Amino acid sequence: MTMAIVSVPQQNWAHELADIDGCEFVVWDFKSDPPRRDIDVVVPPYLSKPTILARLADVPGLRAVQLVTAGYEHALHYLPPGVQLANGHGIHDTSTAELAVTLALASQRGIPQAVHAQDDGDWLRMAGRPSLADRRCLIIGYGAIGHAIARRLLAFEAHVTAVASRARAGDELVESVHGIDELATLLPDAEVVFLIVPLTDATRGLVNAEFLAALPDDALVVNVARGGVVDTEALIAACASGRVRAALDVTDPEPLPADHPLWHTPGVLVTPHVGGASTAFEPRALALLRRELTAFAAGEELRHVVAVGGE
Amino acid sequence: MTMAIVSVPQQNWAHELADIDGCEFVVWDFKSDPPRRDIDVVVPPYLSKPTILARLADVPGLRAVQLVTAGYEHALHYLPPGVQLANGHGIHDTSTAELAVTLALASQRGIPQAVHAQDDGDWLRMAGRPSLADRRCLIIGYGAIGHAIARRLLAFEAHVTAVASRARAGDELVESVHGIDELATLLPDAEVVFLIVPLTDATRGLVNAEFLAALPDDALVVNVARGGVVDTEALIAACASGRVRAALDVTDPEPLPADHPLWHTPGVLVTPHVGGASTAFEPRALALLRRELTAFAAGEELRHVVAVGGE
Repeated sequence: MTMAIVSVPQQNWAHELADIDGCEFVVWDFKSDPPRRDIDVVVPPYLSKPTILARLADVPGLRAVQLVTAGYEHALHYLPPGVQLANGHGIHDTSTAELAVTLALASQRGIPQAVHAQDDGDWLRMAGRPSLADRRCLIIGYGAIGHAIARRLLAFEAHVTAVASRARAGDELVESVHGIDELATLLPDAEVVFLIVPLTDATRGLVNAEFLAALPDDALVVNVARGGVVDTEALIAACASGRVRAALDVTDPEPLPADHPLWHTPGVLVTPHVGGASTAFEPRALALLRRELTAFAAGEELRHVVAVGGE
Repeated sequence: MTMAIVSVPQQNWAHELADIDGCEFVVWDFKSDPPRRDIDVVVPPYLSKPTILARLADVPGLRAVQLVTAGYEHALHYLPPGVQLANGHGIHDTSTAELAVTLALASQRGIPQAVHAQDDGDWLRMAGRPSLADRRCLIIGYGAIGHAIARRLLAFEAHVTAVASRARAGDELVESVHGIDELATLLPDAEVVFLIVPLTDATRGLVNAEFLAALPDDALVVNVARGGVVDTEALIAACASGRVRAALDVTDPEPLPADHPLWHTPGVLVTPHVGGASTAFEPRALALLRRELTAFAAGEELRHVVAVGGE
């Protein structure tokens, strides 16, 4: 059996994965030349500038690049001819779904108000806040993260309706998945809306003045997709009037400039795009690498190939 | 069939329950004399001064008092001889478990830090916060609320260990329930501790300096039980040193005075005892009243009788 030579960006990852049969690990953080030229699979560093990927050209025997991010567009330009590019499918689902539900719970139960009252040493009378329990929740975008959000919401006794680009049969969590063309009939019942669609021409500005006007009073919009899915000006207007509320891990523009009015719009909670960036990342990245590299060393294909260089 | 005469504290409750066979509803908010003297079952107002219950003496035919709170000690003194007192078993479980997990998520994912950064218009770099996923959670007090907390934590991919006053077999959520005498061996692994025990001589000051010293670094203590379960001074010392963190819906003293140091202790999030006080309360109160009054009208016993007057 030929050993597959695999580079990983950190020593502790090489250590964690060392027992995979048929793989030999080297550490390469892309800050210098590759430690050897016969690397078969490169796992580039997480959260680094795309331009460092130019160094992939220094690995002549390269067969595949396995990312630990779901996004892969940044890598396409640097992919040598014939080299497979696989993405980190599912690695961020747990962390992002967790933050989405955290944002909803914090907004519903008044954590921002409690934090400000705590600053003031004020035992605030804040009974009667809306629970997440019993709320009719609409998840727009029902891929892996939408599914992970649904699972958490159901544990909280919330009602879940799922929406995807096309209507389809349901799963163990929802009876059916609605098509996005049904939004007009779904929005008037949606007390909490979760946005987790990819940003495309079809979803850019999806949450505009008309969308927001269709929601019931005091509805909450949670965005863990991309800032551009929401028309920021329309959202500010709807929140400033007290009609709806929002909890946003992503914004447009991003980062949000210090003087942007969204920061201080009533009923808006902002977190600085940290959905995927928690300690939940590393164990799931390592689990994916273990699965994929075990398969690769056994002569199988990587399971999440999204592109091949030069094609 | 004789009609049971039942007083409820609000008109909308009388309306919601009007279809129960064998019950006739009257509204009595205890602000004036009872509307008739032949009431069989009184449902007193929620969140009112215990002293108003002296008016129960004005209902000579009274057979039972059905509370919509879990706590009932305040009513014992006013219970006429022979009258049954039933508590609102389970009504607050959903709301309290929801807030417990909200406090844990908000603390883990940095919502208080995000709120302060938002005040400053600061796109804070806060990647790498600890997720709730993968955390080893210890639930101290495994009654209905502890069970509801466990169900939510498991949906977040956390690990759950349950502790009750005595060791017993597990349920569909946990393999076994540990006895509180095992705490010394359990605390060193407990990354997030949920407190939901009754306040008794055995639990007063349970979370003292020794308890806190046994926790791993950066552990989070969530208290949704009673303030007295925690030694406040010991907690302040442990949090101020950066060793552990806390999220508290209940405090000792309560309400917390404006100048109390707990408000401004690093790593402490305080909510003003709002665990049970959300919109999740009313539908569950009505569901309990429907179950209990249907049974009562059919000649059965109320199911959560906790005392009988004069006994």
